[in-house]
Amino acid sequence: MDEDISRETPIAMQWAAPRGSPAAAECPVRDVLDRLGDTWSVLVILILRDGPHRFNALKRSIGDISQRMLTVTLRTLERDGLIARTVLPTSPPGVEYALTPLGRSLEEPIEILTRWASANHETIRGARRSFDTGRD
Amino acid sequence: MDEDISRETPIAMQWAAPRGSPAAAECPVRDVLDRLGDTWSVLVILILRDGPHRFNALKRSIGDISQRMLTVTLRTLERDGLIARTVLPTSPPGVEYALTPLGRSLEEPIEILTRWASANHETIRGARRSFDTGRD
Repeated sequence: MDEDISRETPIAMQWAAPRGSPAAAECPVRDVLDRLGDTWSVLVILILRDGPHRFNALKRSIGDISQRMLTVTLRTLERDGLIARTVLPTSPPGVEYALTPLGRSLEEPIEILTRWASANHETIRGARRSFDTGRD
Repeated sequence: MDEDISRETPIAMQWAAPRGSPAAAECPVRDVLDRLGDTWSVLVILILRDGPHRFNALKRSIGDISQRMLTVTLRTLERDGLIARTVLPTSPPGVEYALTPLGRSLEEPIEILTRWASANHETIRGARRSFDTGRD
């Protein structure tokens, strides 16, 4: 909690700890980026911004995710405390997923990233074309 | 360029396009998150905030990265236009890597993310412990 990721913090040293070592497990940045690098997790968070969804509604929104992969993704997000799973007293019982306050607090960083991505995607594609057609 | 990632944009639909399809390649969010999900790329960007680095200096700062993995990471970042590679007129010739203006523009989103990670890491770890010791 008192970890302060500032320019002075030797993030690199924490980060560079061998995988699986206690130091690597302690690195919050690596830990969070691993989760954000998982496209399905981010997509679920983006969809849940609009309100709670049932499993099947999530599956329909995402489209090309398998039942198993969605189950694993939801379980991981629930375990991290980013989403909450509620069993509905319906018949048959339904299950609903919603962002927790912690999950909501991740909305802004994700939104800033997606905005950057959207604004700079063309530039990146242009850079790739130049790179691929030979260096300067 | 005129893509606007707002709450109204059906990101999910773009995102959910089958991997490798033209629609998936067009999705800027998926594309950028794939890069950020790569811990080495983010780490290189964080280190280069402090100024240009030579290959060996980068390798020393990161620690547990292989020569080959660092080469691939730098090449990918250069191809995306996020870093620039300069051959120095020294003897023997050295190569230096620095953030481009595009790379610099990614500093802020990354910083916001790392700050979120740092602030919430303990909460996430607590949520995991609760989850693992049985639900509610």
